[in-house]
Amino acid sequence: MAVHKVALVGAGRMGSLHGRNAAASARLDLVSIADHDPAIAEQLAAETGAQAASFEQILADGAIEAVLVASSTSSHLDNVLAAVCAGKAVFCEKPLSLNADALAAALADIEGTELPVLVGFNRRFDPHLGKLKQRFVAGDIGKAETLHIINHDPAPPNLAFVPRSGGLFKDFTIHDFDTATWLLGEPFVEIFATGACLIEPEVGALGDIDTAKLILRGASGVLCMISNSRRTGYGYDQRVELFGSEGALQVGNVHVANVRQLGVDGGRDEPFLYSFAERYAEAYRTELDHFADVLDGRAAPATGPRDSLRALRIADAAERSMSEAMPVSLAVEDAH
Amino acid sequence: MAVHKVALVGAGRMGSLHGRNAAASARLDLVSIADHDPAIAEQLAAETGAQAASFEQILADGAIEAVLVASSTSSHLDNVLAAVCAGKAVFCEKPLSLNADALAAALADIEGTELPVLVGFNRRFDPHLGKLKQRFVAGDIGKAETLHIINHDPAPPNLAFVPRSGGLFKDFTIHDFDTATWLLGEPFVEIFATGACLIEPEVGALGDIDTAKLILRGASGVLCMISNSRRTGYGYDQRVELFGSEGALQVGNVHVANVRQLGVDGGRDEPFLYSFAERYAEAYRTELDHFADVLDGRAAPATGPRDSLRALRIADAAERSMSEAMPVSLAVEDAH
Amino acid sequence: MAVHKVALVGAGRMGSLHGRNAAASARLDLVSIADHDPAIAEQLAAETGAQAASFEQILADGAIEAVLVASSTSSHLDNVLAAVCAGKAVFCEKPLSLNADALAAALADIEGTELPVLVGFNRRFDPHLGKLKQRFVAGDIGKAETLHIINHDPAPPNLAFVPRSGGLFKDFTIHDFDTATWLLGEPFVEIFATGACLIEPEVGALGDIDTAKLILRGASGVLCMISNSRRTGYGYDQRVELFGSEGALQVGNVHVANVRQLGVDGGRDEPFLYSFAERYAEAYRTELDHFADVLDGRAAPATGPRDSLRALRIADAAERSMSEAMPVSLAVEDAH
Amino acid sequence: MAVHKVALVGAGRMGSLHGRNAAASARLDLVSIADHDPAIAEQLAAETGAQAASFEQILADGAIEAVLVASSTSSHLDNVLAAVCAGKAVFCEKPLSLNADALAAALADIEGTELPVLVGFNRRFDPHLGKLKQRFVAGDIGKAETLHIINHDPAPPNLAFVPRSGGLFKDFTIHDFDTATWLLGEPFVEIFATGACLIEPEVGALGDIDTAKLILRGASGVLCMISNSRRTGYGYDQRVELFGSEGALQVGNVHVANVRQLGVDGGRDEPFLYSFAERYAEAYRTELDHFADVLDGRAAPATGPRDSLRALRIADAAERSMSEAMPVSLAVEDAH
Repeated sequence: MAVHKVALVGAGRMGSLHGRNAAASARLDLVSIADHDPAIAEQLAAETGAQAASFEQILADGAIEAVLVASSTSSHLDNVLAAVCAGKAVFCEKPLSLNADALAAALADIEGTELPVLVGFNRRFDPHLGKLKQRFVAGDIGKAETLHIINHDPAPPNLAFVPRSGGLFKDFTIHDFDTATWLLGEPFVEIFATGACLIEPEVGALGDIDTAKLILRGASGVLCMISNSRRTGYGYDQRVELFGSEGALQVGNVHVANVRQLGVDGGRDEPFLYSFAERYAEAYRTELDHFADVLDGRAAPATGPRDSLRALRIADAAERSMSEAMPVSLAVEDAH
Repeated sequence: MAVHKVALVGAGRMGSLHGRNAAASARLDLVSIADHDPAIAEQLAAETGAQAASFEQILADGAIEAVLVASSTSSHLDNVLAAVCAGKAVFCEKPLSLNADALAAALADIEGTELPVLVGFNRRFDPHLGKLKQRFVAGDIGKAETLHIINHDPAPPNLAFVPRSGGLFKDFTIHDFDTATWLLGEPFVEIFATGACLIEPEVGALGDIDTAKLILRGASGVLCMISNSRRTGYGYDQRVELFGSEGALQVGNVHVANVRQLGVDGGRDEPFLYSFAERYAEAYRTELDHFADVLDGRAAPATGPRDSLRALRIADAAERSMSEAMPVSLAVEDAH
Repeated sequence: MAVHKVALVGAGRMGSLHGRNAAASARLDLVSIADHDPAIAEQLAAETGAQAASFEQILADGAIEAVLVASSTSSHLDNVLAAVCAGKAVFCEKPLSLNADALAAALADIEGTELPVLVGFNRRFDPHLGKLKQRFVAGDIGKAETLHIINHDPAPPNLAFVPRSGGLFKDFTIHDFDTATWLLGEPFVEIFATGACLIEPEVGALGDIDTAKLILRGASGVLCMISNSRRTGYGYDQRVELFGSEGALQVGNVHVANVRQLGVDGGRDEPFLYSFAERYAEAYRTELDHFADVLDGRAAPATGPRDSLRALRIADAAERSMSEAMPVSLAVEDAH
Repeated sequence: MAVHKVALVGAGRMGSLHGRNAAASARLDLVSIADHDPAIAEQLAAETGAQAASFEQILADGAIEAVLVASSTSSHLDNVLAAVCAGKAVFCEKPLSLNADALAAALADIEGTELPVLVGFNRRFDPHLGKLKQRFVAGDIGKAETLHIINHDPAPPNLAFVPRSGGLFKDFTIHDFDTATWLLGEPFVEIFATGACLIEPEVGALGDIDTAKLILRGASGVLCMISNSRRTGYGYDQRVELFGSEGALQVGNVHVANVRQLGVDGGRDEPFLYSFAERYAEAYRTELDHFADVLDGRAAPATGPRDSLRALRIADAAERSMSEAMPVSLAVEDAH
């Protein structure tokens, strides 16, 4: 099996995660790392055995087959376009863009290159969710009637990140929109969203919310409830429950270790894994492994720009629903 | 401790349940049972050691201290009024009425008698929910931010019952409205409700729904999600989860027995208790025990006509929200 | 269905438990209570609506159909013999005797009266263990290979009780001997027992142990491990696990309430029920209900003097195994 | 950090597992693989990017710093001796030998080289057991009183393996002996072992057992129960429970995925991981990572030849206890 030379753009939190996974993969050879802050690029390069480089050098390097884009969200789309235009396959951390119209406009250009672009909706590669979907598709619980998603973060984000995050729905709930669409295998036709700033007043002062509840209706009539919170007090709370005509399937939280302590105040399990980095560590590795399959030509990207656009359109509708305090219809055609 | 002579009005499903509990109680003496079908009254009377009687005889019997009202819903309010006017204390199965305005109009008459009227919101007497509330009130999870209630029935109701049920919100969700208000200890100010007929088309043909999702907002900003379904395929699914600023509290389902079987297809717990009658068996007994406390003069009714009216107003608002497809404000004053 | 007049002998801890259950039963009428301390008898009589009486008065009262024996262990056998000789059916708290030879000698006398004698091995009436046995008998896990019993008390017994308890094996492990025999449906042929005083040195000073591990071998080759401890630090730990050729069945502990709290230190369930009185509350009620069936002539006693003798013989062998530090054979014939 | 060149001796089941882990490690460079069957060595070499070689070539290759010994058990000790005499550090799959006296005799030679020898008791590197030990050492449950280990294999071993396995105690229970000693941090002073052939008569025909129960007593008085079975019908059953003076700690089984299905027959979790290869996959990787630490000079081997000898002495005593049907004392001095 060929080893694919790849470069990384963006050496921050997500870039470091993907860069380390690429360096540890036997199927990828991380050769270059670019960041607008060269010191950060050099530090990660030293750690992973890669070279710091400029994005232009990466694009010009014919030996580099693919680019991992993990720069700041606002530059994702430009970087992806530049990479495919330079003939590189792309793995891009989600979201591809915060602007649905801009993304829709760029779709033709991206797809025109016929180069594979994988968008990092990491949950699609989680083994637990994958098993749930597998059982659902196998008919174990009959026809889907209701989907519940709990997506609660352990603690509010760094306040400096909030203004450029795109807001809760585009930054955070977007994972749920993609997960729900993927699990159910059908588009949503209507959404109602409501939210509040219950946790961190500074988040509200920046115009964002930290708590949200949403109800979506799918094309088949299936109903979906999503709960978001930016604080739990007990680690990462990520649960999915799919109710069907013949039963239900649940994915629960994952504990730090499979240890239980019995004491005077009851039985106590270890805490949940603290954040997405731990909870989805395996999913991130599997995601890159899937990207290697894509580079091998053995698989099409499991999630691409159109999935990203679909989730973004739902996030836009959620914002409108919340601001107008009414349900909003989703134009199913938009996403296809 | 005095033993209180009580009579039962209505010997159907709920009447039999309450009648048997009253007969088994050492604090109540079930002496008379009335039903519009005398044969049913006589059968339950024979089983419980009581006498069949007419409602008029019961009202006229000065030895009878209290009346348990478990007749058909449409007669609840009239029976309660007649009983208190005859000087009897009353335990009335929920809902007191399906018509909020009629109930509001009758409130003064009921309260004018100064006789205690306990309304049977059985969940308030469930030991598991009671423990959750106790821990919440003790501050174990800080300030409430979100409440999730799953209330899924094992199987759709008898179709003959649907037209006189008052509809899903007044018949079924009303328990959730009361539970949520009781647990949070604050009124709701807004509701959004949506529903569908996904399970039993006949229910839809009768103008009702069998699946619903609701979002409520409390006076403090707390958000509440309610999920209703008339079918599970796996017994009675009744879960409550309260998320606070410092943690969460969960009440799960109760299994038929605490037995786990390990086999080639995994570990399997016993099924959940099948329906409300099993799940809340202890709550129904505790409820009557509380009624004996009320008759002893040692307690005020834990839930009375005003709680019933409050829940009914929320159910009315839920219907309006669903039919108008928009959030509806709740007039907090109405209920007090 | 007839209501059976019964009397209680012994108004201590176990006597109060059985007396209250008898008083609350619709099928039994507790009329008299005797205790060597009349004040205690009178107190329980006042609480339960019975009369204090002497044991002689009870035996002479032709209206009394049955006697519940819950006096001190050393008087069990004499009281049972006196009761059956007076023509009364008997329910006797376990153990019938601490002396196997004395019990064996009395067997003919007891059985000669042809009066039913039920011995209170309460676990046989536990719904969870009953469900495990039902599933095993139904063949759900194939042929039994191994049985594990954990029987750990929350805290050491009152030291004053230790000298008259008969020692750990006759007082405590005897439940496990009966449970194991009942669940497996076969006699044991060999036992190895070892113990230690690890918890309370005073127990050791009194010649007893507080911790024990035992291995038994059944007639079919099945192996059984029993673990005993007089202290947990976390309530009553009572678990049974039966491993078969096609799977396993487990009965776990029962929690105070079905509530889970999520916090910074992990997920925490409510404590286990604290002691046998709570854990087996339902079993004790069912046991008396079964005794009412016996009095109705609808059932033979589920556990009788021969079961008591069998368990006692095993306890004797356990003592010998521990003192001689070697396995001891069990004469299967003895018990039949 | 230096990358250490290592060679592998033995390319069978365990050799493949370690070889693949070494090849995937960024800290080890697997350069050579020897097996008495060159075809097997070449196949694994091709897969891992190593070269097939003879053991002699490996010993003679000065560039090779360490040898991973995963040949057949009977050759472990000779291979280890040869490797250390050739100046190589060694990682050896357990057991180092099936003959305690031979191992004791070789100890001086091995230790005389002052080269590190790590013995593969994989469970010491399991994160769940590690967390249990960490909590115990931190004092979370007070003083240890009882340790229970369940070690049940999913299915009997290949019959061809049985005669050269050393028997159940040396092949299988030896893990439990090491785990118990490691967790408790104290030596055992007495053992009682009993066993049977309940599962596979062919195992008995070969002079081995497939089911065993053991009781050990530690120097502090702590009691340890071990249960072994060669069949579960439901995957790998590996549980450890440590009871202390102030509570208990439990390590449970690990499921294939964190998915639960609710259906008419109850709630069902995914099966347990099927065998040691899946259950301890992470432990095997951590073990090699620890070996890299040893090669870096940053750690002493966590388990060495003396631990192997200690466990082997206990296994010998278990065999004697079973054959003589009596407890056997363990000479604590032997192991130190």
